[in-house]
Amino acid sequence: MNPATDRFMTAAIIEAKTGHDEGGIPIGAVLVRDGKIIGSGHNRRIQENDPIIHAEIDCLRNAGRIGSYKDTTLYSTLMPCYLCAGAVVQFGIRRVVVGESRNFAGAKEFLISMGVEVTDLDLDECADMMAEFIKNNPELWNEDIGEL
Amino acid sequence: MNPATDRFMTAAIIEAKTGHDEGGIPIGAVLVRDGKIIGSGHNRRIQENDPIIHAEIDCLRNAGRIGSYKDTTLYSTLMPCYLCAGAVVQFGIRRVVVGESRNFAGAKEFLISMGVEVTDLDLDECADMMAEFIKNNPELWNEDIGEL
Repeated sequence: MNPATDRFMTAAIIEAKTGHDEGGIPIGAVLVRDGKIIGSGHNRRIQENDPIIHAEIDCLRNAGRIGSYKDTTLYSTLMPCYLCAGAVVQFGIRRVVVGESRNFAGAKEFLISMGVEVTDLDLDECADMMAEFIKNNPELWNEDIGEL
Repeated sequence: MNPATDRFMTAAIIEAKTGHDEGGIPIGAVLVRDGKIIGSGHNRRIQENDPIIHAEIDCLRNAGRIGSYKDTTLYSTLMPCYLCAGAVVQFGIRRVVVGESRNFAGAKEFLISMGVEVTDLDLDECADMMAEFIKNNPELWNEDIGEL
């Protein structure tokens, strides 16, 4: 990773760990513009008992109504699902950087088909964190990805 | 419309009108299972100053963590955008009924490509309500659909 990517993904990982420590699903995200983090968040579906608060959604909420998204990059510790990929496409975010997609293939092909640049850093730290959660909480994970 | 469709779309229209009266974007949605409304909501992006609270998202939040969505139908006064269509696909909702798509083509083709059954009732009441809002609030509408 280059130093900037490392910094932003590290921030997303810290968000994921915060979610883990709250008893939630360990996925974190940050939104970046002009080399600065303008929003960050983590999956809070369990904490808030709210089905739509995936990490990327929480991040976009926390960034607020920023106007145009065309110069933003969304970092997430895990490949976005269709909900979050749909947000990326609808809002016009052009670049997505993910920590891993070993545990969840997500909507990568959909994002690419819509012209979004997707970079998968394939980090052991992200993959191990997610694998551990899924192993210990298969029902919560299946609910998260709509496979009940 | 058959009587049930009429009842559920009427409920979505009432949600849209509530949003309008709050100074928001007049789009409403209801989630139906086994002939009963299990969640309803309306676009509250302006009211809550929150970019992700589209009508369908508000509806899904209000329905809560219901487990499987496979027997649900989502009614919306307007064709869903990619954010809301992404939620439909990810959650496994199989049927979407919309009031109109004259003012916004939305993500209809994406939904169909993912196996979702989409019914467009093409109602003057929904189309007129939306056209009036867009005419009077072009900037808010362009922000809503990510075209700033």
